[in-house]
Amino acid sequence: MSEIQKNVEAASEKYSSGFTKGHLALPPAKKYLVLTCMDARIDPAQAFGIELGDAHVIRNAGASAQDALRSIVISQQLLGTQEIVLVKHTGCGMLTFTNEDAYALVDKNLGPDATAEAKSRNLDFLPFPEVDSAVESDVKYIKATKLVPDSVAISGWVYHVESGKTSRVV
Amino acid sequence: MSEIQKNVEAASEKYSSGFTKGHLALPPAKKYLVLTCMDARIDPAQAFGIELGDAHVIRNAGASAQDALRSIVISQQLLGTQEIVLVKHTGCGMLTFTNEDAYALVDKNLGPDATAEAKSRNLDFLPFPEVDSAVESDVKYIKATKLVPDSVAISGWVYHVESGKTSRVV
Repeated sequence: MSEIQKNVEAASEKYSSGFTKGHLALPPAKKYLVLTCMDARIDPAQAFGIELGDAHVIRNAGASAQDALRSIVISQQLLGTQEIVLVKHTGCGMLTFTNEDAYALVDKNLGPDATAEAKSRNLDFLPFPEVDSAVESDVKYIKATKLVPDSVAISGWVYHVESGKTSRVV
Repeated sequence: MSEIQKNVEAASEKYSSGFTKGHLALPPAKKYLVLTCMDARIDPAQAFGIELGDAHVIRNAGASAQDALRSIVISQQLLGTQEIVLVKHTGCGMLTFTNEDAYALVDKNLGPDATAEAKSRNLDFLPFPEVDSAVESDVKYIKATKLVPDSVAISGWVYHVESGKTSRVV
């Protein structure tokens, strides 16, 4: 067993021994979802004030709305969420490369079969050059898709990894 | 401003006022990623023992490896993670419907234009009928794709929303 796997087991022992939230319902109690980045420096529960059971939390590379669409539709249509809080952040890895860079890395490190697989899946890594405008365009994307009704409230934010502050963009 | 937006601002004030982690580096310090569900009843940091800065956390409906592939490749190729901890959970919403059910809901609630958009995107909601076997098949999926090298360690787990316990499946 790896050190990381041992750490999961130790955390599980500790967390479950004091656990008192086994009664929570499946649908988010406060009927909202947070979409943010997978970045290791973000703790959504603490930084954005999410109590256990209150909200869905979707995380992917860059907090991409396009990549999250399947989860957003399930959250909204199957589990009744009515508001979206989208949070990208300063210092995001998605600001540091282009699709071409990522494809070149895959080809160099994993070989032509991996490149062929990425191409056959039309894999778009969805990087962006600037964070505020990326928040704006992702909010627009959600407003434009017919798969999210106009009744869903959407706000767009930037989390500052240097200060722990979250500020509203749109 | 909605109550949920006010709550984000209040949490930001509180969290940033005591924040001491502004120095953390972009790449995850412990070089691993956790893939889990967006479910409101899961707090990955607490339940799986993730310290701020240590791991990427990817979350989507059902902890789908297929849906997370873009983020996994970025985490691994661009930011150097070398281990994957995949955690699905008991009582998952993905156990409660089929693709046909989801398409019928979209059509009823959002209309034929939304259904047409979902079809044009080949939207697969990726539900599953049983959690342990879904963990196994997602671990197999990651092992099979050429976009993740064989050197990456992968373990599969189930989090129990009733007890707060996380147990290893594969």
